[in-house]
Amino acid sequence: MGGDHGPSVVIPAVAQALAKLPADVRFLLHGDETVVGQEIARCKGLAERVEVRHAARVIAMDEKPAQALRRGKGSSMWNAVEAVRDGQATAALSAGNTGGLMAISKLLLRMSADLERPALVASLPTPRGFTTFLDVGANVDCDAERLIEFAIMGDAFHRCAHGTPHPSIGLLNVGSEEMKGHEEVREAHRLLREGGFELNYKGFVEGDDLTGGAVEVVVTDGFTGNVALKAMEGAARFMRNELKGALTADLTGKLGALLAGGSLRRFRDRLNPPPAAPLLGLNGMVLKCHGGAGVTDYEYALRVAVDLARSDFAGEIKRNMRRRPASMVEPGEEPAEGEV
Amino acid sequence: MGGDHGPSVVIPAVAQALAKLPADVRFLLHGDETVVGQEIARCKGLAERVEVRHAARVIAMDEKPAQALRRGKGSSMWNAVEAVRDGQATAALSAGNTGGLMAISKLLLRMSADLERPALVASLPTPRGFTTFLDVGANVDCDAERLIEFAIMGDAFHRCAHGTPHPSIGLLNVGSEEMKGHEEVREAHRLLREGGFELNYKGFVEGDDLTGGAVEVVVTDGFTGNVALKAMEGAARFMRNELKGALTADLTGKLGALLAGGSLRRFRDRLNPPPAAPLLGLNGMVLKCHGGAGVTDYEYALRVAVDLARSDFAGEIKRNMRRRPASMVEPGEEPAEGEV
Repeated sequence: MGGDHGPSVVIPAVAQALAKLPADVRFLLHGDETVVGQEIARCKGLAERVEVRHAARVIAMDEKPAQALRRGKGSSMWNAVEAVRDGQATAALSAGNTGGLMAISKLLLRMSADLERPALVASLPTPRGFTTFLDVGANVDCDAERLIEFAIMGDAFHRCAHGTPHPSIGLLNVGSEEMKGHEEVREAHRLLREGGFELNYKGFVEGDDLTGGAVEVVVTDGFTGNVALKAMEGAARFMRNELKGALTADLTGKLGALLAGGSLRRFRDRLNPPPAAPLLGLNGMVLKCHGGAGVTDYEYALRVAVDLARSDFAGEIKRNMRRRPASMVEPGEEPAEGEV
Repeated sequence: MGGDHGPSVVIPAVAQALAKLPADVRFLLHGDETVVGQEIARCKGLAERVEVRHAARVIAMDEKPAQALRRGKGSSMWNAVEAVRDGQATAALSAGNTGGLMAISKLLLRMSADLERPALVASLPTPRGFTTFLDVGANVDCDAERLIEFAIMGDAFHRCAHGTPHPSIGLLNVGSEEMKGHEEVREAHRLLREGGFELNYKGFVEGDDLTGGAVEVVVTDGFTGNVALKAMEGAARFMRNELKGALTADLTGKLGALLAGGSLRRFRDRLNPPPAAPLLGLNGMVLKCHGGAGVTDYEYALRVAVDLARSDFAGEIKRNMRRRPASMVEPGEEPAEGEV
């Protein structure tokens, strides 16, 4: 029911995805059965391949997380996450309210291992593939331990999403020298260097490495990550508009743009950020699809969700977490309960 | 002597700038008189309009700030800043080592009023003009008071650089609601809202507002600012390369690109960041030109320097600082000496 377009986008996307996915992939659709049913009726043969679970209410796009928790029970979003908790679904995908989805997911699924809070991960295009970038907004204040958890989660995510056995990891900073940056980032750097996490840690990276592809996973706090992600999205939007303006300013520009149309479309497609962002660190898989997603985006998001659901992603994170303790414990300190 | 190209770029740029600038603008050129002299000899009529001050040594591009301070005396950079301090020059422009330039400037010129450290300011293109963005890397850890100083400096800079009487100011955050962000940014928000600074403060802005033009001055700490600036530069570079790839991938693309060539060049020019970044907060004007600047960039940087030198920029900052005290002083606290 979520996102800017609701079932009119989600249902056709499910139909398109099913046509391409293996026969054993099944979908549970949570929402108003009348509205959802009408959309399903428009897609030939879809009714036989999906199961509709009626939900009488929805989480509105502008509800606060606390409201979503208080009044969310029985909503389509709540039920979708609950189905993951109860083992009826392997992953939940929503284009709805991000804060509500995080709060409901944390409540129903709880955090995995010793992790404190979910991290939101973004994928950025680079000349060679994708950069896994986290946290992009779930955690504003991050100490060194939180940054190391992001490295552990990012490593597991990138391995599962892109098949790289040992993805290279960088810590976002304002320079590459040891003494650069604030205390948290320098402490995380020290621990990652010395810590024996079995991570392929490469050291500090800078803002332009995010789309430059210097490393495969870039770790930062949720404040810097959110600002950097939105700054890049804004810059890309500005460039697209300027390009459009430049190419329609005069006749030869227009003619050229017409001829180069296919190339320019491929250019635009290449820059579209992948439409699904997983919430990392939960006991269960929840993905956020961006609210403005159209049918093609949502179909792509569904296939990302299926790929991740088939991977041993949660297991990877848990195994990574088990490597953490010995080196996270300060010399002379007692290891915290459950960490060894 | 600084930058990637040294006098072979700086001298022709001076010649080009002089041709366009009023006759009363004069240049002092600090550097190796043989090398500089050779370049001057290549530009007809230039020798009569500039004065060369010999400097036996240069600050290398990879010298640490501390090295630059220790061994910098008598270098071309040192002498250029010293000329500002001694009233022989109104502004100094260098394409050399940034850290060295900041350290030498702070030592020789000292900070203005109660300001603590220089801030580096960047100008970003927007659909309507430019965003003044600071700090982009001089101050990694910033408390609320530092952020307010940036707002004061950014306001004065934008007024002098772009002629807007009361530039609108935003504080960079991860959302626009009052409770978003970390403690420093919320405290700065509260003070700017209540403080009576006579600033046109608009509240929180987000990363995509940097190139969106929501406000004219965007304030953040040097860590976030540096990462966001470099992330946008990286994204712009990635997009230019992708576009080039897309437009040369096939014949119609190539033909279209040929026809749209003029439009694409205007597009590229529009996105080139202004090549000169002033160091704000000093008793004297020092500008940093980016190291890779070519003749056109350096000429533009020289004209920016002249414009700023003709403005009452330092006076603006001092006047702004005078408005600070009453509201910066916590209730029940004694105002610090010199602040009232």
